[in-house]
Amino acid sequence: MSRPINRQILLASRPTGEPSVDNFRLVESAVPELAAGQVLVRHHFLSLDPYMRGRMNEGKSYAQPQPLDAVMIGGTVGEVVESRNEHFAVGDRVVGMGGWQEYQLVDAHQRGVLQKVDTRHVPLSAYLGAVGMPGVTAWYGLVKIIDPKPGQTVVVSAASGAVGGAVGQLAKARGARAVGIAGGPDKCRYVVEELGFDACIDYKQHGDVKSLSGALKAACPDGIDGHFENVGGPILDAVMLRANAFSRIAMCGMISGYNGEPIPLAAPQLILVNRMKVEGFIVSEHMELWPEALKELGGLVATGQLKYRESVAEGLAAAPEAFLGLLKGRNFGKQLVRLA
Amino acid sequence: MSRPINRQILLASRPTGEPSVDNFRLVESAVPELAAGQVLVRHHFLSLDPYMRGRMNEGKSYAQPQPLDAVMIGGTVGEVVESRNEHFAVGDRVVGMGGWQEYQLVDAHQRGVLQKVDTRHVPLSAYLGAVGMPGVTAWYGLVKIIDPKPGQTVVVSAASGAVGGAVGQLAKARGARAVGIAGGPDKCRYVVEELGFDACIDYKQHGDVKSLSGALKAACPDGIDGHFENVGGPILDAVMLRANAFSRIAMCGMISGYNGEPIPLAAPQLILVNRMKVEGFIVSEHMELWPEALKELGGLVATGQLKYRESVAEGLAAAPEAFLGLLKGRNFGKQLVRLA
Repeated sequence: MSRPINRQILLASRPTGEPSVDNFRLVESAVPELAAGQVLVRHHFLSLDPYMRGRMNEGKSYAQPQPLDAVMIGGTVGEVVESRNEHFAVGDRVVGMGGWQEYQLVDAHQRGVLQKVDTRHVPLSAYLGAVGMPGVTAWYGLVKIIDPKPGQTVVVSAASGAVGGAVGQLAKARGARAVGIAGGPDKCRYVVEELGFDACIDYKQHGDVKSLSGALKAACPDGIDGHFENVGGPILDAVMLRANAFSRIAMCGMISGYNGEPIPLAAPQLILVNRMKVEGFIVSEHMELWPEALKELGGLVATGQLKYRESVAEGLAAAPEAFLGLLKGRNFGKQLVRLA
Repeated sequence: MSRPINRQILLASRPTGEPSVDNFRLVESAVPELAAGQVLVRHHFLSLDPYMRGRMNEGKSYAQPQPLDAVMIGGTVGEVVESRNEHFAVGDRVVGMGGWQEYQLVDAHQRGVLQKVDTRHVPLSAYLGAVGMPGVTAWYGLVKIIDPKPGQTVVVSAASGAVGGAVGQLAKARGARAVGIAGGPDKCRYVVEELGFDACIDYKQHGDVKSLSGALKAACPDGIDGHFENVGGPILDAVMLRANAFSRIAMCGMISGYNGEPIPLAAPQLILVNRMKVEGFIVSEHMELWPEALKELGGLVATGQLKYRESVAEGLAAAPEAFLGLLKGRNFGKQLVRLA
């Protein structure tokens, strides 16, 4: 019996500095026959996320590096097309970490490797965004680190992205003022008009820390009580200059330094002067909170109270270019690759 | 009836960069007659502390600047020599914020302005050090922020000082490994041999971050789980290079930047990579915890389990020089000025 052909993208080499499409390689091969307990998933969408850049490096980080010549890591949603596992039936919609490939053959008895999802009220792709890892990331940093009180001001960088957009909307839902930082007038307009933030600063209009800090002062007349950091560098410096006493910074990403550029923090003494708390986190280390977070996020998406946008690249071969664009902020909202 | 003469040191001008004795002025005047409710305290010791440097500046900080032409702020211990307050009797030993002067005339009905202390088991001067603000500072940062588990490694800078020495001993009492950083072989020997730290690094033997980081690696073979920062600058950079996952940094002081030098943090992305928590604090904002802290500290001092050392300058006129020396690390242990 003829088997489906699976196309996969491997990490071919590690980047020195900025990555390029040459760091990736597309291969294809037939899907093997299923062994007992296995499930074959046809991927509908692949998620592209900034954390993948870190995995491409060899150096010490919070996770093992992505191995060379192996399928790139990545979150996926799809449907079960073959099953030799009693817990999964053909047609089930599932979310998993299938990687950059069109099919995923999994030993589905491993707990948590594949989750069935309900697509009656939440679109399948949302399980890679607002009701998936990015959404829970936003939820954890906002709820567990920033913990905003009504009337407080929360700032988030990369505000039009999958994580940033959710941070601001969750902050608003808690009665806080939400101020975004994003690149370009279109993203800023979207953040305010569609996502309902109180203000959004276009960092491209501000060439230095002083100018950006001035814009933050105007947008945050009562100072900044919480900040969700996705970018780092001058943006973080500017935020710190406007931070209130007892403010909290959730350190989620520092994309400005992902290619090895130095990104010193100019004035760490402000952490002391303002009695700040700065805390880094990785959402996958807090799995015990995912059910609570996903319940809130799923409810908000189902009722239209949590909005998001998707940038969809078409076909697996487009994934490397789309990923490089994401690192440069060329995406607008959650970056996905459509695979079926 | 002739009144005692009170000598006082005022802040005469604000320093630009490094302070000098010219920023201070000594004046004297007769102590007024007591009004009802007032107490006159003859100071025995004045405490000199790094935080005073921050108060000399005009800029925004966590506290109001020290006013010009007013008595310099400072903790004091002494004895009641006149009283028109039913709660205080002549001969009572008291601790307060009497400032840089020989006598303090206080409206002692204000709650907390003057505290009677018991000198049967704890020397009077210790209420300015191990059983006073520096001790509680050490206790708060160690217990409430670092919260070391048995077997974890805690590093503290300025380890021979009043705060640092207590941090390491409190860490040892909790079963942690204590590693100090101090300036010079005498201080390092004292930290290990007298205070019982497991190791102490002489930062003067290490000219750059890399060298200091290497020394930390040797002294902390299992990495660093908690760090109590009194200094900042290259010392903090070196510590961060050895920080473990989920490590905590209590930011207590950044004396390396007190004169306005830039002290950027080289690699803030390590906060994310290592999921660190970095938290600044001011001990006077946590008064609700002082009784618990002072009980532990007083007990440890009374039983000889918490050791400390004092540098004593003689006479009020010596205070400015002693203070400038403290900022340069010339003191050895808690810096006091004997006033009687």
